[in-house]
Amino acid sequence: MPKIADQWLHKVLDAMHQRRTATRAQIVQATKLNPASVSHALQYLLERGTILKVGELQSKAGRRRDVLTLNAEAGYFVVADLEGAHMCFAITNFVGDIRYRWEEDIKVGRTLEVKEICDGIQMVLRGLTDAQRSRLLAIGISCPGIWHKGGGVTAFNLGWRKMPLASNLEANFDLPVYLEHSTRCAIMAERWLGLGQNVRNFAFVTVGYGVGVGIFSNGRFVGGRDKMAGELGHITIDPAARDLCRCGKTGCLEAIVSSPNVVRQYLELSGQEHQPIVGLRVGDIFDRYKAGDPYAAQVINRASKYLGLALSYLVNFLNPELIILGDDLVGGEDIFLPRIRSEIEANSLPDFVENLEIRVSRLGHDIGLKGAASFAFRNSLNNAAVLQKMCRPAVESHEPIEAQDVASPHSTSSRSGSALV
Amino acid sequence: MPKIADQWLHKVLDAMHQRRTATRAQIVQATKLNPASVSHALQYLLERGTILKVGELQSKAGRRRDVLTLNAEAGYFVVADLEGAHMCFAITNFVGDIRYRWEEDIKVGRTLEVKEICDGIQMVLRGLTDAQRSRLLAIGISCPGIWHKGGGVTAFNLGWRKMPLASNLEANFDLPVYLEHSTRCAIMAERWLGLGQNVRNFAFVTVGYGVGVGIFSNGRFVGGRDKMAGELGHITIDPAARDLCRCGKTGCLEAIVSSPNVVRQYLELSGQEHQPIVGLRVGDIFDRYKAGDPYAAQVINRASKYLGLALSYLVNFLNPELIILGDDLVGGEDIFLPRIRSEIEANSLPDFVENLEIRVSRLGHDIGLKGAASFAFRNSLNNAAVLQKMCRPAVESHEPIEAQDVASPHSTSSRSGSALV
Repeated sequence: MPKIADQWLHKVLDAMHQRRTATRAQIVQATKLNPASVSHALQYLLERGTILKVGELQSKAGRRRDVLTLNAEAGYFVVADLEGAHMCFAITNFVGDIRYRWEEDIKVGRTLEVKEICDGIQMVLRGLTDAQRSRLLAIGISCPGIWHKGGGVTAFNLGWRKMPLASNLEANFDLPVYLEHSTRCAIMAERWLGLGQNVRNFAFVTVGYGVGVGIFSNGRFVGGRDKMAGELGHITIDPAARDLCRCGKTGCLEAIVSSPNVVRQYLELSGQEHQPIVGLRVGDIFDRYKAGDPYAAQVINRASKYLGLALSYLVNFLNPELIILGDDLVGGEDIFLPRIRSEIEANSLPDFVENLEIRVSRLGHDIGLKGAASFAFRNSLNNAAVLQKMCRPAVESHEPIEAQDVASPHSTSSRSGSALV
Repeated sequence: MPKIADQWLHKVLDAMHQRRTATRAQIVQATKLNPASVSHALQYLLERGTILKVGELQSKAGRRRDVLTLNAEAGYFVVADLEGAHMCFAITNFVGDIRYRWEEDIKVGRTLEVKEICDGIQMVLRGLTDAQRSRLLAIGISCPGIWHKGGGVTAFNLGWRKMPLASNLEANFDLPVYLEHSTRCAIMAERWLGLGQNVRNFAFVTVGYGVGVGIFSNGRFVGGRDKMAGELGHITIDPAARDLCRCGKTGCLEAIVSSPNVVRQYLELSGQEHQPIVGLRVGDIFDRYKAGDPYAAQVINRASKYLGLALSYLVNFLNPELIILGDDLVGGEDIFLPRIRSEIEANSLPDFVENLEIRVSRLGHDIGLKGAASFAFRNSLNNAAVLQKMCRPAVESHEPIEAQDVASPHSTSSRSGSALV
């Protein structure tokens, strides 16, 4: 057997990662490698147990074709999602299923320390056996903010200004760390697992604690010069608005439509801004709106009007076929969907809206973790040492990490500082 | 010599089209073909005179390398630009130099008939000899409006609703017709010949009779689902504005910043709307602004504020490194550039503006014709019959079309209905 080129393994594993199952012919087609190279790489990966044979197909000509799949226990990733009001940490297996999970509130108004992230990672690592630990491949982090050349991250929400997060974490764990913007993690999860599969032009819009958009154009992620593309929260949607944003500007979309700002406006309008209702959440405002509360109606009407206007700009500039709404908008689907659509219609030429679909994400709150796991997998393929680790012979066998009954963090009443498995 | 694959010719000619001159090694690198295929294709094209040897380079090792170029007379294109207040028609040679030109005003407020376009094309064809005519390869048209599946074009300015222009023209001329959106023609001209060379993330913004933007992201043109991406004129930049747009909406960016609308607002403000000054143009408003006319200042301030706000959205969504301003903005460079920059700064996070360049196009008023010629060239490479025509042996020689002293259409006082060569 000839020497296996890393490039073959990379391409074959990448192609397998995008499919639940595949035949050799499908992999040849997807990788554009020559069939002999694919056969060699598959034989190598099957021998080592990185890929498993799970069935056979009979072709018309009577030839049998093996159905292959990734071995879910071939390696594990540590992933974290720092977007939103909680930090989530998890162990995912080779195909992105979530195993252990740990979740903590992010304390508003103070800087999130690297040590806190390290502690969270330790919490999900503690249940692993030595054999399982030896199969850890990389750390993937989904993180909000603005990326700078040289690896620094600025995130208002976390109190960071040019924080060198990846290198700080790499100093603490003997694993490569892959950091990705949370919007990009989410949109890639939609692209690989959600509504964006096989859609060439779409935008994934998240409105929750922050506001962001990820853009796919002609089948490719739009990153921009400094990977900062997709800034939606800090566009000035109304130059006359007096809503002060946490970035220091007024009239930002985020200052009007983000969940904390919807709550803020509700409290102000209803004269309760000095005696805030403890724990009032945006979902409560949605409920009050449905119950006929006029203050809730006024706030929701304003937010949906401006969000729709902002999305009309996106539609005009980019002519997408699909807009996916995520984060807290999922809970306000029945309220927001028709309003956003009618605002886009009112502010665009008809041809832009005729074929436009607007839907809410179905990936739920794990979208950031799943996106981080996918990015960690794909980045690992470019790392020769990790790629080799993925192909370690199956003889060094180990107990699989059992799928556990992981409670959804948002279905429990107490979500603070508790391991959920 | 082996059979020459069309694919080799296609790739070699495409690579040559992007360079004034190239060596065989540069073509191998650009096409990613194997060197033997490139040698065969070059030999074939040199024998037929499609490519010429124009010099030699001496390498360090003492080996001589031929410097090659496209034969400017290997074929001709008929091109037309229907954007703006005039229709321009031209003959361009194989490398995009403009030879004959014909220009006519587009009459505002009535439908532009296909016959008028055919007549314009006939005007530039009439000076050609039979041998030159036999070297005509294709017709390229740069056209504003919205593209529909099936080839129809809707252009308010030209009075078209789903006009099947390409098929109508093909029925009149025995040449393939390649229709491209004027914004796309312009941005590709910037990409191939102008400020956008080697820039991966940029936007080309035109403000003149209409308002549009072409977007390049990560080295690729952003088209969107229906090739309608880049709609800038009909975004609602101010929902409260009462400026009525020709699309029927109010508050469109175009209704405030396009050249006719700048003139309109000036006339309204100065109380002259019922006695319009004959032939007042946007350039005159720029002059009056510089001379201290308060009405001109008010109109220009409003236009630049809204244009800057709209471009801030573009910058936030796409994180470009360069914005190129074109059309009538070129004439108002000193007025608009600083204002647009400060508006983008006021409405974006600092990191988006730090590395952002804003410049005006240097390609002048021929940008549409040059873009149309480039598109016609590239599309022709996909047409086997036209590709063969490009490679017709040099023995069927002909008189070259002489470079003529073509007057710039915008430097003459009378521009209506006159052949300029």
